[in-house]
Amino acid sequence: MLNVCLLGTGGTVPLPHRWLTSCLLRFNGHAFLIDCGEGTQIALHKQRVSVKHIDAIFLTHYHADHTAGLPGILLTMAKAGRTEPILIAGPKDLHDVMRGVMSIARYVPFEIRECEYHEREVEMDFKDVIMTAFAVRHSVPCYSYVLDLRRNARFDRQKAEKNQVPLKAWSRLQKGETVEMDGIAYTPDQVMGEERKGLKVVYSTDTRPVEQIARHAQGADLYIGEGMYGDPEKADKAKLNLHSTMYETAAIAARANVKELWLTHYSPSMETPSEYTEQVQAIFRNTVVSADGQQKELRYEDE
Amino acid sequence: MLNVCLLGTGGTVPLPHRWLTSCLLRFNGHAFLIDCGEGTQIALHKQRVSVKHIDAIFLTHYHADHTAGLPGILLTMAKAGRTEPILIAGPKDLHDVMRGVMSIARYVPFEIRECEYHEREVEMDFKDVIMTAFAVRHSVPCYSYVLDLRRNARFDRQKAEKNQVPLKAWSRLQKGETVEMDGIAYTPDQVMGEERKGLKVVYSTDTRPVEQIARHAQGADLYIGEGMYGDPEKADKAKLNLHSTMYETAAIAARANVKELWLTHYSPSMETPSEYTEQVQAIFRNTVVSADGQQKELRYEDE
Repeated sequence: MLNVCLLGTGGTVPLPHRWLTSCLLRFNGHAFLIDCGEGTQIALHKQRVSVKHIDAIFLTHYHADHTAGLPGILLTMAKAGRTEPILIAGPKDLHDVMRGVMSIARYVPFEIRECEYHEREVEMDFKDVIMTAFAVRHSVPCYSYVLDLRRNARFDRQKAEKNQVPLKAWSRLQKGETVEMDGIAYTPDQVMGEERKGLKVVYSTDTRPVEQIARHAQGADLYIGEGMYGDPEKADKAKLNLHSTMYETAAIAARANVKELWLTHYSPSMETPSEYTEQVQAIFRNTVVSADGQQKELRYEDE
Repeated sequence: MLNVCLLGTGGTVPLPHRWLTSCLLRFNGHAFLIDCGEGTQIALHKQRVSVKHIDAIFLTHYHADHTAGLPGILLTMAKAGRTEPILIAGPKDLHDVMRGVMSIARYVPFEIRECEYHEREVEMDFKDVIMTAFAVRHSVPCYSYVLDLRRNARFDRQKAEKNQVPLKAWSRLQKGETVEMDGIAYTPDQVMGEERKGLKVVYSTDTRPVEQIARHAQGADLYIGEGMYGDPEKADKAKLNLHSTMYETAAIAARANVKELWLTHYSPSMETPSEYTEQVQAIFRNTVVSADGQQKELRYEDE
């Protein structure tokens, strides 16, 4: 099971009624945060999520509306008694940004592990989850993310018996270990059935609607995409500022055959993003024009 | 006239229902901000104050709950089209902190003028206002502030006539200029009466209740002071963490004979600071246990 929570839906400037866009992904006792603008820790508090247990923060790019919450959140983690290291990952110049963050935060008693991307596509393997960062097109280096939650294959008793695997070895093999018994080595593939479909979430803001988003989002369970502008007359502005309109993002969702699209990262000038719902759904039916706190538990197909 | 607005009243961690402590002072078309924690720009927005026209930001010290809003506010000023320079003043290491702020903000198209304090007391003269920073006692170098709004002396016609100042020179002398006429130099003191009492506001948080606060606050129109702890059992904690209890601050207000005290900078663990109102008022009657947005227009005595 994967819990996805869109903590905020604003772009550029935090507003009294709209937090800046960031997303919390929770699975198997872990928590990943994508982006951390000014106020993100308050939005987490509002969702009753303790900042203490966030394992990693993934940054899309270094505009302050996506990063300026870092000093505060690290300080709050410190005040909450955190001692475990945290991973912070993002495009090149991460170290420079983090040096800045630390000049403000100053007192952070736990280790910060930096992961800076030097390729256009970076795959980070966290065992039960693969996080892929891929470069998109904005005014500064910017990445979008794919979270693939793997699902273990089912134990296949018939296969185990056919392969004459001793009963005693089954449970360890099922956990992925290799087992030696009476001089014979047994491997997990001798007892496990086919891989089962996991869950895939794609997160992409602050970019033109480039083709690699559709490629990565293919068949995703959830695509969280940019809805900077709803007014069709803002199409040129989106091009100029290297953002996307709601319609461009909906077109990607349709092309990528995703199950559901959540729009986010609204221009502060847009007072009621939901007023465009009908027009966007005409392009991709299963679109949610999200508001702060939009949340869902994604489940495996047969659960 | 001086408008004082306490934008937030929280200490340490910004909360969904309580912004971090910072204070906006507006006078004669100018605006000074004291401290800028995470979310201060949202609190300003809530008060319908444009961040664009803030002339100066004075920092008390470099704990992130007082500074982490700087990258965001500078970026929002930039987005609002600001081109005028801004003054940012604070204790030593300001340049290091500002380098950090700029690594996060990155795109700030106007000049930032830094003023770093190297003395225990620093007087900054802004013509109609004198801002004095004075060192207090916290776990890191920390300053409190006195804002003195000067009031022009009244024009004294009798004095002008007695000094045989030509009528033509009166208005320029009244503006503070020196005037030469028929080979004689006239100075403003020849036409102006006694100085009139201005307005004085003292702002002091994150400190033990040291004597210099009482000294500087003597007779102040408003003293904004620290109310970190209300529970009398937290007196030792206040000592240990170099903060003040509400009662210690009220005692300073009484000693300094201020007109009014506003408490602020509450510990996040304190849910309802106002529950201590009666006990604090027993020490200093004219105490307000402030909430976010506490605001007042201070007027000259005879206005």
